[in-house]
Amino acid sequence: MIRLYWKNASSCVPAVGDAHGVTREEMRSMEDRLARALAAVRAEWDAGRLGYAALLDRQPYHQTLADLVGRRRGETTDLVVLGIGGSALGAAAVHTALHPATYNLLDDDARGGPRLFVLDNVDPALVADTLKLLGDRLATTVFNVVSKSGKTAETAAQFLIVADMLGGKTARDRIVVTTDPEDGPLRKIAAEQGYDTLPVPPDVGGRFSVLSPVGLFSAAMCGGDVEALLDGARHMAGRLRQAPPAENPACVLAAIKFLMATTKGKPLHVMMPYSNRLLGLADWYRQLWAESLGKRHDRGGREVFVGPTPVKALGATDQHSQAQLYLEGPNDKLVVFLVADRHPADCDVPAPPRGEGPGYLGGRKLSDFLHAEKVATEFALARAGRPSVTIRFDAVDPESVGAFLFFYEFVTSLMGELLDVNAYDQPGVQAIKDATFALLGRKGYEQLAGEIREFDRDEDSYLL
Amino acid sequence: MIRLYWKNASSCVPAVGDAHGVTREEMRSMEDRLARALAAVRAEWDAGRLGYAALLDRQPYHQTLADLVGRRRGETTDLVVLGIGGSALGAAAVHTALHPATYNLLDDDARGGPRLFVLDNVDPALVADTLKLLGDRLATTVFNVVSKSGKTAETAAQFLIVADMLGGKTARDRIVVTTDPEDGPLRKIAAEQGYDTLPVPPDVGGRFSVLSPVGLFSAAMCGGDVEALLDGARHMAGRLRQAPPAENPACVLAAIKFLMATTKGKPLHVMMPYSNRLLGLADWYRQLWAESLGKRHDRGGREVFVGPTPVKALGATDQHSQAQLYLEGPNDKLVVFLVADRHPADCDVPAPPRGEGPGYLGGRKLSDFLHAEKVATEFALARAGRPSVTIRFDAVDPESVGAFLFFYEFVTSLMGELLDVNAYDQPGVQAIKDATFALLGRKGYEQLAGEIREFDRDEDSYLL
Repeated sequence: MIRLYWKNASSCVPAVGDAHGVTREEMRSMEDRLARALAAVRAEWDAGRLGYAALLDRQPYHQTLADLVGRRRGETTDLVVLGIGGSALGAAAVHTALHPATYNLLDDDARGGPRLFVLDNVDPALVADTLKLLGDRLATTVFNVVSKSGKTAETAAQFLIVADMLGGKTARDRIVVTTDPEDGPLRKIAAEQGYDTLPVPPDVGGRFSVLSPVGLFSAAMCGGDVEALLDGARHMAGRLRQAPPAENPACVLAAIKFLMATTKGKPLHVMMPYSNRLLGLADWYRQLWAESLGKRHDRGGREVFVGPTPVKALGATDQHSQAQLYLEGPNDKLVVFLVADRHPADCDVPAPPRGEGPGYLGGRKLSDFLHAEKVATEFALARAGRPSVTIRFDAVDPESVGAFLFFYEFVTSLMGELLDVNAYDQPGVQAIKDATFALLGRKGYEQLAGEIREFDRDEDSYLL
Repeated sequence: MIRLYWKNASSCVPAVGDAHGVTREEMRSMEDRLARALAAVRAEWDAGRLGYAALLDRQPYHQTLADLVGRRRGETTDLVVLGIGGSALGAAAVHTALHPATYNLLDDDARGGPRLFVLDNVDPALVADTLKLLGDRLATTVFNVVSKSGKTAETAAQFLIVADMLGGKTARDRIVVTTDPEDGPLRKIAAEQGYDTLPVPPDVGGRFSVLSPVGLFSAAMCGGDVEALLDGARHMAGRLRQAPPAENPACVLAAIKFLMATTKGKPLHVMMPYSNRLLGLADWYRQLWAESLGKRHDRGGREVFVGPTPVKALGATDQHSQAQLYLEGPNDKLVVFLVADRHPADCDVPAPPRGEGPGYLGGRKLSDFLHAEKVATEFALARAGRPSVTIRFDAVDPESVGAFLFFYEFVTSLMGELLDVNAYDQPGVQAIKDATFALLGRKGYEQLAGEIREFDRDEDSYLL
C-alpha cells in the first residue's frame, strides 16, 4: 500500500536543522493537540458523521453502482463526465492512476472499456470539440451528469447542451445522473425524464466524494478494480482508526504540515509525484487542501485568513522547471514526494552504441533512473536546507491509490482540527456564484449587477 | 493581439486599497528603476545579446525549419518530441493553444498533421505505453530529440531507447535532432549517423527557446501557422522596444509583480487562463518565472534567496478548487487572468425545456457564460481585497499567442533587472544533476555517492 517517510522534514538532517525542520521537542509539544484532533475526528467517525469514512461501508451504494455498470458497460463506447471541482477531480485522478496516458487512443478492443472524457470546464472550445468528436459514436455514448446539489451552474449549462443535442427520447438512454438521493433540481429532472441515477451521500462533500459513485462510476465503467480501490481505502481506514498519534502516519504528516505552515515559514505545500500516473492525485489534493483549509474564520468566528497553498509539480519533469526555485528561492515550501516501488510498465535503457555517449545510463531500467532522480532531488533539497517528506506506494495499483485517497482525506480532517477551521464547507465561493448570477441577469440580483457595472466602469484608462 | 488591464491591482479599488494594491506614488517611485531596467534590456537587445529577441530575425533558422517540415510533413503520421523542461514546454504550449483538446483523436484526414506526443518525462509507463501505442505507425513516426546542450540525461536515456528500438538504418530516417548548431554530443552523433538536424541558437536558453526550432518544429509539422506566431511576437517586440515605461505593458506588469512580491506580501503569482487552450501557456510560464527569478545570489554575489512562486490555475474549473483559498486564505497572491475575446469554437446553451431549471443560463453562448464567470471571480477577489490583472487576447490565435510569449519573456527580463538577478542561468539544478550522476555510478562522483548513502542511512526509523 503506502508508507510515509519523514526524516528529511526533521531537524536531524544537518542543513535543514531547527530552523527548517521539525524537532523532537516540537513533535512532543504537538502530542496533546494531535491526540485531541485525532479523538475529535474519531468521535465524528464513531457517530457516523465522518461522511467519507462512512461511505466505505455503504454496501447499497456500491451495489447500485455495480448493477448500473453491469447493465451499461458492454454497450458503451464513450463516457463523458459532466462535472466540475469535486465532481470531476476524483474521477480524473483515479482514471489517470489506473490507465495508460494513451488510454483513449487505444483500439476499442485493447482498451477494455469506453473512452473517457471529463468535461470539467465550460470552456466553449473544449465542449464543442469534444461533442463534435463523438460523431457517430454518440449513439453509444453515456453522459454522466454529476452535481451533488443538482444546482451547479457550469454542469447545468453542459447538461442543457447535451440534453438538447440528444433530444428527449434518446437522452433517456444516454444520460446517467449522479446527485443527491432525494433533493435538488437534477434529482427532480431525472425522475421526470426517467434517467438512470446514482446517489451522492448527502453527508459527503464534493471534494471528499471520490470513493462514492461520483468517482467510482467512471472507474468501474473503464474497467478499474473498484473493489481493490475500496479495499485499499478500508485497510488504511482501519490503520488510522487504531494507531496512536505517534505511530499514526496521518497524525505525523498533519503535525509536520501544521508546524511547517505556522512556525517554520513554509505555507507552500508542494505535492510532487515521480510518476505521471500519480499526477492526477496531486490535482485532486489541490482542491482538497485549498478548499478545506483556506478559511477566513476559525470555528469560533475569529478572522484568521489561514490556509497553506497547495502546489502541484511533477518529477522528474519539474526538475527542469521548478527545482531551481525550490532549491535557491525563498525557503517557504514543504515538498511531499510521491514515489512508486513498482510502475505499471518499464523500459530497458540500452548501452550507447560503440562505447560512446553517456555510458552510466545504459543497462538500467528507466524506473531505476527515475528513482535516482528523485533521491537526487531529495538530497539536493536537504543539502540546501529545504525539508521534504515522501509517500511511497508499493505500486501504482488500485489498493495503493485507494489507501492514498483515504489517507489524505484523513490528514485534511486532522489539519482542520489543528487549524481550528471547518474543513467541510466553502463559504467564500458563494460570492463568485452570486456575482455570476448577477451578470447573467438572474432575478433578485439586480443590485449586485449594478455594483459590478460600477466596478467595471473605467476599464479603458487601465488598458495597455 | 493582447492587452493588459491592471486597475484591479491598483489601490483605486476600495477593498484592495493601499495595503494590497499598487498606489500612484508607488508606480511613480518605480519610474527611475523601471527606466533603468528597460534601458538595460534594450541595450542587450541593441547589442544582439537578447537571444530570444534576436531569433525573431534569424531568417536562416526559419528557412531550415521550413525546408525540413516541407520534406517531412507529408509522410509523417506521428511526431514524438523527446525533451524535458524548456525543450518540451514551449512546443506543448503552442500545440495546446492552436489545436483542439481532441487533436490526437481526430482521423488522420481531419487532423491535417501528425499526432503529437511530447514525452517530457522519464516516467517508465509513459514512455513504454507511448512507444507501444505507435505499433505499425512506427514506420511513419518522426522522433524529434531536443536538447540544447545535447547532454540532458533524461533525453539521452529516451534517445538510447528509441534509437535501439528503431535500429541504425531506420533511425536515420526517423530521428530529427534539435541541438546546438556545432557543439555537444548530440550534434556529434547526428553528424555521424546522418540524422536531420535543426539548430538551437547558442545564445537562447531553453526556457526562452519557444520561438526557435525547439518550439516551432512540432508546431509547423502539425499545421500551426508559424509565420503568424512569429508575426505576433515581432509586433509585440516592436511595441515593447518603442514604448516608454509608463505606456509599456511589460514595464507596468513587471512593476506590479515586483511591488507585489517585495512590498505587498504577495510572493505567489498565479496565472489563471479562462480557456483550456491557453492552459499550456501557464505551464510554460511556470518554468520561465521559477527558473529565471528563483535565485540564491543577486548579480553582486549577495545571498538573497528571491523569487516569486508561479502557480497555475484554470478558470472556471479552479473556481471549484482554488477560489475558496484565493478569496479567504492569506492575502499573499497576485492573480493574472488570461481571457480571450474570441474562442476557436462555441456552443449555444438552449433554454431549459418547459420553463424549468435555471432559465438565466438559456439563450446564451457558452463563451458568454465563461466570461461572466471570470468577471465574477475578478469582482469577488477585488471585494475581498485581493489584487488581479488581466491579459486579454483578441482571440486564441497564433498572432496573440506569439505576442503573449514574447511579452512574458520580456517581462521576465525586466523582473530580472528589478530583482537584480541573472534571469538566464540556473545554477541550482547542477546539484541535482551531480547527485543523479553519483547515484548512477558515473566515474568521478564516488565521494558524493558515499555522502548520499550516508544521507539515506537510517530510513527505517522514519517510516510509518
